[in-house]
Amino acid sequence: MTDALRQLQEALGPERVLTGAAVSEKHHADSSGEAPCPPLALVRPSSTDEVSRIMQICHRAQQKVALQGGLTGLCGGATPQQDEIALSLERLSGVEEVDRDSMTLTVRAGTPLQTAQEAAAAAGLLLPLDLGARGACTIGGNIATNAGGNEVIRYGMTRNLTLGLEVVLADGTVITALNKMLKNNAGYDLKHLFIGSEGTLGIVTRATLRLFPRQEGRCAALVALGDFADAVDFLRLMKREFGGSLNAFEALWDGYCNYIVDHVANIRNPFDERHPLYALTETRGGEAEQARFEKTLAEALEAGRIRDAVICKSERERKAIWALREGVAEIPQLVQHNANFDVSLPLNKMAAFLRRLEEEVETVLPGTPMLAFGHLGDGNLHLIFPLQRQADKKTVYDLVYQQVGLNHGSVSAEHGIGMQKRAYLRESRSPEEIALMKLLKQTMDPKGILNPGRVIG
Amino acid sequence: MTDALRQLQEALGPERVLTGAAVSEKHHADSSGEAPCPPLALVRPSSTDEVSRIMQICHRAQQKVALQGGLTGLCGGATPQQDEIALSLERLSGVEEVDRDSMTLTVRAGTPLQTAQEAAAAAGLLLPLDLGARGACTIGGNIATNAGGNEVIRYGMTRNLTLGLEVVLADGTVITALNKMLKNNAGYDLKHLFIGSEGTLGIVTRATLRLFPRQEGRCAALVALGDFADAVDFLRLMKREFGGSLNAFEALWDGYCNYIVDHVANIRNPFDERHPLYALTETRGGEAEQARFEKTLAEALEAGRIRDAVICKSERERKAIWALREGVAEIPQLVQHNANFDVSLPLNKMAAFLRRLEEEVETVLPGTPMLAFGHLGDGNLHLIFPLQRQADKKTVYDLVYQQVGLNHGSVSAEHGIGMQKRAYLRESRSPEEIALMKLLKQTMDPKGILNPGRVIG
Repeated sequence: MTDALRQLQEALGPERVLTGAAVSEKHHADSSGEAPCPPLALVRPSSTDEVSRIMQICHRAQQKVALQGGLTGLCGGATPQQDEIALSLERLSGVEEVDRDSMTLTVRAGTPLQTAQEAAAAAGLLLPLDLGARGACTIGGNIATNAGGNEVIRYGMTRNLTLGLEVVLADGTVITALNKMLKNNAGYDLKHLFIGSEGTLGIVTRATLRLFPRQEGRCAALVALGDFADAVDFLRLMKREFGGSLNAFEALWDGYCNYIVDHVANIRNPFDERHPLYALTETRGGEAEQARFEKTLAEALEAGRIRDAVICKSERERKAIWALREGVAEIPQLVQHNANFDVSLPLNKMAAFLRRLEEEVETVLPGTPMLAFGHLGDGNLHLIFPLQRQADKKTVYDLVYQQVGLNHGSVSAEHGIGMQKRAYLRESRSPEEIALMKLLKQTMDPKGILNPGRVIG
Repeated sequence: MTDALRQLQEALGPERVLTGAAVSEKHHADSSGEAPCPPLALVRPSSTDEVSRIMQICHRAQQKVALQGGLTGLCGGATPQQDEIALSLERLSGVEEVDRDSMTLTVRAGTPLQTAQEAAAAAGLLLPLDLGARGACTIGGNIATNAGGNEVIRYGMTRNLTLGLEVVLADGTVITALNKMLKNNAGYDLKHLFIGSEGTLGIVTRATLRLFPRQEGRCAALVALGDFADAVDFLRLMKREFGGSLNAFEALWDGYCNYIVDHVANIRNPFDERHPLYALTETRGGEAEQARFEKTLAEALEAGRIRDAVICKSERERKAIWALREGVAEIPQLVQHNANFDVSLPLNKMAAFLRRLEEEVETVLPGTPMLAFGHLGDGNLHLIFPLQRQADKKTVYDLVYQQVGLNHGSVSAEHGIGMQKRAYLRESRSPEEIALMKLLKQTMDPKGILNPGRVIG
């Protein structure tokens, strides 16, 4: 046992510092598929003060730390590396306050997203951050990765929902800035250093998030489109008509839909014939909104701007069209090897990008399907290529990320960089940007102990 | 002439580096009322490359630089200090691109806000950043100060509208990251270091801003309210009913309205009797929105949640109620001495804050009126105290900022800190936060040449 571990056990008590077989396998890896690795020890603080004491000890001893929240990350950020201890925030959990006047929620970092959503709902309010992993992912992890999700088109990413933070720095300094106000230009807005930097600059321990009024009712439709240009035109129409109440605009390419319908039980395409592209769109509101929604789609159909539309008349019908989108979660069970992407592109580059990619993949790996879908309203494209062999992954990675770079896109729209995409960061960021990132890391964590090697390692 | 000035003249040519009487007085001060000071020289680069060359020279020579945009700032950030040269971005001007698909606008820093708004409008789109100084203030200044303005409740501050930036660092390094995408989690989001840091960490040279669809029609009303609790209740009602389409919710206290009506020509209070508080509220939309707007107000009146309402039936009527709000611009012409505030407070603290302040000011400076109004939907309160003597200013500053601190508010909601509020920053930010700000400044501008003394000086 190292000196650092002994000091941690003295400071926190042995039950908070587990080693060897006492560390459950769950803490050996996140959800990225990166190789699991048991940490030197698992520490589980239950207060900000304990997090601070842990970091003071680790800073003195130059002990590397892997931060863990709900372990749902897809890029390897929370998988321990050689000689790291794992610091799990899971015990630093609980909603501290819902302020109905300020419409804010103050919550500890280890709180599952769903728990926070429910606390907001119990006060008649909405925490609009929502993603598939809601039951397991934690608020701290959402903030550290600037999580996106289903309603970004309306409410923005986690960054836009975060008003205040408490953070523990690499040397144990606690910065408490649980701001509740929408407008605060008193000095540098330090929280943005920590949001989305994947735990490499500090450890989020508490946060104050922005809440919204709950709006009852949803209007949803699946719309069939002729091509990508029609999708962009229809997106513009929906944005203009519904402005701030448009809360989803997902594009599903025919190849993706067809693959899901063919491979996943109980999911069907509601149209009688196949179309090149579909848009799943949704707004929130009651009867008046529904009437306006139907009128807008009817006029678009009449004008030839869309090919067809299925308007949901019930929650059951709404769930049926969302099943087409959410069927993606089944793909890992269907194919052993696949290359997944979460990229962003300027909208006017996307069609050519996809055409080029399809050709290039066909040349290198003939017969490989390209499954494309995504949050089109946000410029975010998800791509999945089911592969014959694990060895083909790198071929596809290189090919896709190179095209992303050439089109001034982002190699990660929402999942982050972690360990997995470090080599591709340079496709999206210039040498000057990466040098500035490294300068910030060096300044704020001079001993390189906080999630070392992640993002810019 | 110093070595640095000689080198600047050699690098840029003498017509770009003015000294002595050739520097127009306009460049001696911004709009803060801080003491004017002629700069050592005025440099006016017209390209990013020139900005970079200027900073390389200044960095080597340790020459301090005051950055200037439209000189409309209210906190003294752009007023030159002893031994500083003024670097004006006014020639680095022009809209480079409006991308209708991505709904983005790429613009040079010295472009006036109104020019950028007009370029967006010409493409059928909306740049929702809007403030009184629109004709003179520049995009670079808006970004450096994270400007707020009239539609923050719906679209957020300048930070939320900024997708990409090009920045020149203190040593002349150019960071070009003109990102167009809403979602980009590829590494640290460096732009947030520069937005709102008032030119102390880098010089914004170009930006890519987010545009929105233009929505025709406005529904506006002035609503009379019984007290502050009623205002918060009515704000919640409007947010719930109109969600993302609510674009203004301004509170005007009776003392403010009465002062404006009494002192400014051609402005009247449209109600027959006086009420404690008024809300000016506005949503965007056509006939259907107007019907829903009127119905919501009628029901609120029926239920006793509001006391009375004047619903605008024409653009002329809408302008008449906004005149009550915008009459504030006349106050500096009416009173020689006044203390102005731009603070934020959690909504549930605001009523007690105002009561306490009124009492304390009455004790110290009897008979001083307190004029209160603000973007209530954002928690942002503006306060004006007309004073008998210049010497009373500091008394009121100390008193107000102390109460802001005790209520966990912000000493600057939207105007910034500049030179003027440096002494009060500690009321809103902890010693640990200020230490981290200083560490960042020291790291990114080790010679202390970029807007020295501003914000944390």
